[in-house]
Amino acid sequence: MQQLEQYRSCLEACNACADYCDMCSVACLQEDNVKMMADCIRNNMDCAAICRVAAAYMARNSKYAKQMSALCAKICQACADECGKHDHDHCQECAKACQRCADECLKMAA
Amino acid sequence: MQQLEQYRSCLEACNACADYCDMCSVACLQEDNVKMMADCIRNNMDCAAICRVAAAYMARNSKYAKQMSALCAKICQACADECGKHDHDHCQECAKACQRCADECLKMAA
Amino acid sequence: MQQLEQYRSCLEACNACADYCDMCSVACLQEDNVKMMADCIRNNMDCAAICRVAAAYMARNSKYAKQMSALCAKICQACADECGKHDHDHCQECAKACQRCADECLKMAA
Amino acid sequence: MQQLEQYRSCLEACNACADYCDMCSVACLQEDNVKMMADCIRNNMDCAAICRVAAAYMARNSKYAKQMSALCAKICQACADECGKHDHDHCQECAKACQRCADECLKMAA
Repeated sequence: MQQLEQYRSCLEACNACADYCDMCSVACLQEDNVKMMADCIRNNMDCAAICRVAAAYMARNSKYAKQMSALCAKICQACADECGKHDHDHCQECAKACQRCADECLKMAA
Repeated sequence: MQQLEQYRSCLEACNACADYCDMCSVACLQEDNVKMMADCIRNNMDCAAICRVAAAYMARNSKYAKQMSALCAKICQACADECGKHDHDHCQECAKACQRCADECLKMAA
Repeated sequence: MQQLEQYRSCLEACNACADYCDMCSVACLQEDNVKMMADCIRNNMDCAAICRVAAAYMARNSKYAKQMSALCAKICQACADECGKHDHDHCQECAKACQRCADECLKMAA
Repeated sequence: MQQLEQYRSCLEACNACADYCDMCSVACLQEDNVKMMADCIRNNMDCAAICRVAAAYMARNSKYAKQMSALCAKICQACADECGKHDHDHCQECAKACQRCADECLKMAA
């Protein structure tokens, strides 16, 4: 579909980022030191939510897709930074997915 | 991530189905005979919404992921059937994504 | 709007329940003993997500509104039961909102 | 709950706006001249989606609640303007809910 192709790379980054953030939020809750992960979990929740909406806006070729992607890029970057501070595999994997999504959304928003 | 791997195939089907449904809803609105597409658009909206939530439940390894997938399978199947009636490329492509997601969700729910 | 009136009471219960669950998830993360709140937070995330989708289905008078409400009732009930175990004000308030929503959704689904 | 009280008025406006937009999207699809309503429906879909996420961010007292509300205000305003052009009761009622939400979100974002 031409309509999806123009956004393919950003769409896939958003979907993957949302999945990793949702996964990471629950994996953090299972760590021994949950207290230390509270900020990470909050970022995960915000990031997963906006990534799923940004994907929907792009798939609908919304007039607001660029503005949504610009905000999504900020929230993904913050989540990448926070997750990146923690050594857990789930955080490191999530940080990568968030960084990729932040980069894709920034390109999209340009 | 092991947490995502167990659901990988269904997760990807849900994300793809949501994207196709969101795309199809707007493509239907641009057809000459929109009236004829009203049911398709309504199915698209319901299907996109539940697929994004089902993906979130699976990624969080929710206790309710199976029950959510069971309902998702029904709604995807209905959307596949409705989209499949229309010759537009976007409907045909969407019907395939919905059918694949219905099948994956049914397996997941088992 | 006649379209919203028929669902008014359940719609409002779903929106309120989602808000309380989102609020409770973050309030739990700020408690000293977060570990003990992990199940509560997971239920909150599931419950908030389905309540917002159930509200959307009702507002769209979806063919699947009843089936969505039936699943929503189960997840709200589980969240009410889990939140009800904890003495924190946010958990007790959230439990009430979840119980009200479970009851409304059950009626809707009938 | 103190956590919800600070956002009460904006939260309620977001939830109501989402409900009206979801309702209006489907009511538009049932009009005789659906073609003329295509832009309204697309605005409704975007507006409902961001209002539900903005409500979640506020309820979670997210660091990004203000930025989300700022974008939400723009999309609500656009939807209020588009709905306001159409004489159907559902569009007029929806326009009012969108205008109220745009105003509340603008205040929140300040």
